[in-house]
Amino acid sequence: MSRTGRTFLEETKFVYLAPSDQVLGRPQPPLERPHAGPVTSLPPPEDADLRPVDLVEAIARRRSVRTYAPEPLPLATLSYLLWCSQGVTSVYRDAWTFRTVPSAGARHALETYLLINQVEGLAPGLYHYAALSHGLSEIEAPEDAAEAVEEALISQPMVGNAAVVFLWAADISRMTWRYGERGYRYIFMDAGHACQNLYLGAEAVGCGVCAMAAFDDDALNALLGLDGERLFAIYAAAVGQKG
Amino acid sequence: MSRTGRTFLEETKFVYLAPSDQVLGRPQPPLERPHAGPVTSLPPPEDADLRPVDLVEAIARRRSVRTYAPEPLPLATLSYLLWCSQGVTSVYRDAWTFRTVPSAGARHALETYLLINQVEGLAPGLYHYAALSHGLSEIEAPEDAAEAVEEALISQPMVGNAAVVFLWAADISRMTWRYGERGYRYIFMDAGHACQNLYLGAEAVGCGVCAMAAFDDDALNALLGLDGERLFAIYAAAVGQKG
Repeated sequence: MSRTGRTFLEETKFVYLAPSDQVLGRPQPPLERPHAGPVTSLPPPEDADLRPVDLVEAIARRRSVRTYAPEPLPLATLSYLLWCSQGVTSVYRDAWTFRTVPSAGARHALETYLLINQVEGLAPGLYHYAALSHGLSEIEAPEDAAEAVEEALISQPMVGNAAVVFLWAADISRMTWRYGERGYRYIFMDAGHACQNLYLGAEAVGCGVCAMAAFDDDALNALLGLDGERLFAIYAAAVGQKG
Repeated sequence: MSRTGRTFLEETKFVYLAPSDQVLGRPQPPLERPHAGPVTSLPPPEDADLRPVDLVEAIARRRSVRTYAPEPLPLATLSYLLWCSQGVTSVYRDAWTFRTVPSAGARHALETYLLINQVEGLAPGLYHYAALSHGLSEIEAPEDAAEAVEEALISQPMVGNAAVVFLWAADISRMTWRYGERGYRYIFMDAGHACQNLYLGAEAVGCGVCAMAAFDDDALNALLGLDGERLFAIYAAAVGQKG
């Protein structure tokens, strides 16, 4: 029997934490990763066609949605969904971001990548979200990006049918700087926070979401240009308008 | 430099998954853990004094709340908050539960424990949530349960001031039965889903939430009677009425 999980739990117990880089006085990593190309501003999230939805009803109705209408998503809808899942609501002393989701010690070590299939005003391909400026930069992608991502996500058919697929990665040093190896637990919790907000937030724009945690790690990291050790994919979610 | 996290990531890559217990035809673990004592039904969640809250406003307003009004929480409010974070919305063939939050393969391996400080109709102490029947059972606790839990949670003062503290544990075989060692990633994501719903759902009952991921694992497990290997605490959140 493999003991991978048990060993990880044991070694990341709070009592074993070695002095973190923060305690050792090492500089804090930047609040977000650099962007490979120019960052294009997104329209403000409030430009989306937001329907009034009662919070409790949204919680009661939550279900994974695996089929989507073929219509493209307005760009403002995408802007709003990015804001729901990782939007920066304030920055404190250039050292902390506060977002629509919580993160241990406000570390916020997630980077959001997107497979765009059908979004108005965006060429299909792969993009990287700039949370601080609420913009997008395109990243290099194979011509068949959708097929390649679908294959990396174990051929889950939602990938090709969705208007957009969120691909969350962890920039691990932003979390371990403060929490050491225990930070590897926290990045998965943060991905859960982001994904749940995406599920609920989607209700206000008539969209459905399906989370996906099964993927070929190396293949997805390679597609997104992530090294797989300092920066690596951890969670994904397909989004499209409800049919 | 410790390689705990890197080793965990490497060994839980999807491509390395050994045939799971499910594939090997082994029986599925029960949908929830047995309860030590009698389970008392909770009032229906809709009995809570639910205020109409716009979903998008709730997302925009999310912040961790660390001070609470001294008033006790009505029992129906607690019932509603348990439903928000782990409520079962349907059961399929006694093999899957669907809940207000998603879980990979609908495995739902979380068990919810509670430190009750001030909830109407409940003696202060430690409780275990029965998700399938939406009830609570009291578990054995030291007389100074609140102090003991606060100490296990690294003396975070929210623990003693909160009306209730949610303590989420993973019953890991429910997840690894299907996903093997990779399931250790998924339980943390599921804790994130539950916690985010608690943050948002709390807005409808005028409550504030503060998530806590720093705790002495062995001490908290011992307090809750968890063995620390098959069943272990992974996340916590303090809840009380906003001051």
